[in-house]
Amino acid sequence: MTVLERLREALGERVDTSTASLEAARADRSGHRSPGAPLAVVHAQSVDDVQRTMRLASQTGTPVVVRGAGTGLAGAANAGPGEIVLSTVGLNRVLEVRPDDLIAVVEPGILNGELNALLAAHDLWWPPDPASRDISTVGGNIATGAGGLLCAKYGVVRDAVLGVDLVLADGRMLRLGHRTVKGVTGLDLTSLVIGSEALLGVIVGATLKLRRRVPGPVCTIVAAFPTVRAAAAGSAAVTAAGVQPAIMELMDATSLAAVHALLALPEPPAGTAQLTIQTDGPAARTEAAEIVAVLEGAGATVTETDDAAEGERLLAIRRSMHPAMASLGTTLIEDVAVPRSAMAAMFDEIARIEREFQVRIPTVAHAGDGNLHPNFIFEGEQVPAHIWAAADALFRAAVRLGGTLTGEHGIGVLKSRWLAEELGEDQWEIQRQIVRVFDPQGILNPGKVFHSA
Amino acid sequence: MTVLERLREALGERVDTSTASLEAARADRSGHRSPGAPLAVVHAQSVDDVQRTMRLASQTGTPVVVRGAGTGLAGAANAGPGEIVLSTVGLNRVLEVRPDDLIAVVEPGILNGELNALLAAHDLWWPPDPASRDISTVGGNIATGAGGLLCAKYGVVRDAVLGVDLVLADGRMLRLGHRTVKGVTGLDLTSLVIGSEALLGVIVGATLKLRRRVPGPVCTIVAAFPTVRAAAAGSAAVTAAGVQPAIMELMDATSLAAVHALLALPEPPAGTAQLTIQTDGPAARTEAAEIVAVLEGAGATVTETDDAAEGERLLAIRRSMHPAMASLGTTLIEDVAVPRSAMAAMFDEIARIEREFQVRIPTVAHAGDGNLHPNFIFEGEQVPAHIWAAADALFRAAVRLGGTLTGEHGIGVLKSRWLAEELGEDQWEIQRQIVRVFDPQGILNPGKVFHSA
Repeated sequence: MTVLERLREALGERVDTSTASLEAARADRSGHRSPGAPLAVVHAQSVDDVQRTMRLASQTGTPVVVRGAGTGLAGAANAGPGEIVLSTVGLNRVLEVRPDDLIAVVEPGILNGELNALLAAHDLWWPPDPASRDISTVGGNIATGAGGLLCAKYGVVRDAVLGVDLVLADGRMLRLGHRTVKGVTGLDLTSLVIGSEALLGVIVGATLKLRRRVPGPVCTIVAAFPTVRAAAAGSAAVTAAGVQPAIMELMDATSLAAVHALLALPEPPAGTAQLTIQTDGPAARTEAAEIVAVLEGAGATVTETDDAAEGERLLAIRRSMHPAMASLGTTLIEDVAVPRSAMAAMFDEIARIEREFQVRIPTVAHAGDGNLHPNFIFEGEQVPAHIWAAADALFRAAVRLGGTLTGEHGIGVLKSRWLAEELGEDQWEIQRQIVRVFDPQGILNPGKVFHSA
Repeated sequence: MTVLERLREALGERVDTSTASLEAARADRSGHRSPGAPLAVVHAQSVDDVQRTMRLASQTGTPVVVRGAGTGLAGAANAGPGEIVLSTVGLNRVLEVRPDDLIAVVEPGILNGELNALLAAHDLWWPPDPASRDISTVGGNIATGAGGLLCAKYGVVRDAVLGVDLVLADGRMLRLGHRTVKGVTGLDLTSLVIGSEALLGVIVGATLKLRRRVPGPVCTIVAAFPTVRAAAAGSAAVTAAGVQPAIMELMDATSLAAVHALLALPEPPAGTAQLTIQTDGPAARTEAAEIVAVLEGAGATVTETDDAAEGERLLAIRRSMHPAMASLGTTLIEDVAVPRSAMAAMFDEIARIEREFQVRIPTVAHAGDGNLHPNFIFEGEQVPAHIWAAADALFRAAVRLGGTLTGEHGIGVLKSRWLAEELGEDQWEIQRQIVRVFDPQGILNPGKVFHSA
């Protein structure tokens, strides 16, 4: 029997070989596509489906690509010839919400936005808020170690997951972590799974650390600066003043102009870069006033509102970045992070790389935590060599400034060429050996992350 | 040449074989002692000293026990015959404080309290605050994944470390993690090292995530309850009300009476258990008023102050727990954590175990995060069999309630017998294999944590 026949025998109608499904599994939102269609998509509806699939894959040595909603930006969930796609989107139940313990136990397929809508009824929320929150799954958020807009104040995924249920490559199930806030029993394998991009196992459940919804008003501040460097310096001044905004987003001139064009808003003055800042909590108004003073001192034109709907409208400009970039051409979205004090220097480097490589790199940044998304714009489907060269220069500049290759999108296939350089050969090799402890045959997401030394 | 001769040749006067030093290295603050004196203590003064020691240990297959200030409570740093003790207390410099990036880069030997005194000058702090903070090192805090009193609001060590420099068993150096708030480049080995009890390598540096000091008043509330169960229910009511205290400590009747006796305070009414609660930040007074109302509704007699010095005096009662226990006899300090909603049930279990095993188990708890420290009192140096049996019953009760064996003290030698039971055999074996990736010969802290299956 072929692998496909055995898969059908074991999983019946869960196995999908329709052209549409196979083609969809070749790509995520990075723009990158695998070289060809995978073998089949298994739509798991239960943990048992996942375990059956992995046992069969393990017995036959068939590679498996785990897939959530496919909203990744590094190609980690893109599946190619000979691979089984294991979709966990159908595992989407909320098993438990415990307001008294501030935890929820969920399956991986639930969308981040759906979960938070449900938690809102309990006056609770799960803080990780990637820009994709309405279309990305909690399992995918955990597998990539997703970030978002609120991280500087409310943390990243690593801060918001207490435990993970993991099906290993051979089908065995491990229950990692705790239901308690504290717990140091053995090695912290929960943290190891967060951001591991499906190399260690299949996440089939998670215990999430919740917060109560923050009481008080939300104040929104929009500050226009004559240059992106001035905007970066303005954001650093806010951080240095000791105020902690919930959100602090920076858009450079090209990004801002593109979004204004997309949304049919009046064109901003040439060169204008913008900070969009929100404060929340009991001291929101005091903090907003303090921030306005700092920004005006830094040379910005500032508007402020404590109207929630108006605030959302202002933030929508930032949230329209992705479609606005798509309107400019094909994009390679980078994701470097630098220490906050190095933000202005990083924008200088981006300007230098634009000149040197003759490329446009519209950039937005989560300025509160130093995470920049430079968007390399080009024509056609394949990333051209000069764009890779520019991306290489960008990555090296970020590392020189004390930064890192990826703040929240992960390595996938698009960044594996730089991984060893940042980690060093020794650490790269140790990480690879750890992966082999979980998956000795190397059938989980082969060719991703640790592909090349 | 013997190992000791080679060590002297390589490290000269750093090598200490005085009886006093060898004897001191046999014990930590758990009360447990190793069966005999180790080979030598190496007082490392530099990363190079650490690397030389590890290279030599690796070449000769000599076991190494890494040691900070020796304040651990699980025996992880206790060294025995044939072992080299590698002390990192002499590596105690603060290499960098960056208020603009909210990070500090430190060596492992600096005391938590010293570091925080130094950070205060910058209006900054590092949140982890184990009760031992004035005598324990930052390196030891990281190696054990220490907790403390402020964890429910301000997080544990895992939330406060961005990177770690680790010398491997063979002397190679790995730089793990980032200087940035976000970073998902490869597996999160920084988190893996946190709480790994020196099994993976020697921590020789750390990049710490700092917070700005919280502005506003600190309000302190003391609530007396007629029973410990009522106090536990009171703390659960505070959590359920949606207020987030900075500190919420519970003392049962025996603990409270022992501390009052030690400090020559008036004897509390028989059976009285106590909550000590602090709120901070801009909403401290509002939150304190809300908490007082909840506690009075739960049947407590409540006093409140917003005077900082008076607040410290009230909290000193809780901080005197360790010496008060020592005045009752020898103690085995347990460290279970349960979901917050299970606190009252856990106190019922403790009462049952006291009756069944005819032991006294005075207990304090970090009630805000469900972490209990039951103190088993006995006579003599060795833990008697009936105390181990009672501790076994306690651990099983905590796990039945959804909890864990250790919230913040670690496994060491004292809890390794229960580790496999909580993790399950599969996870225990995978964790052991990960340790072998870092230390193939098994020379780092042998016989600890993963000792018995």
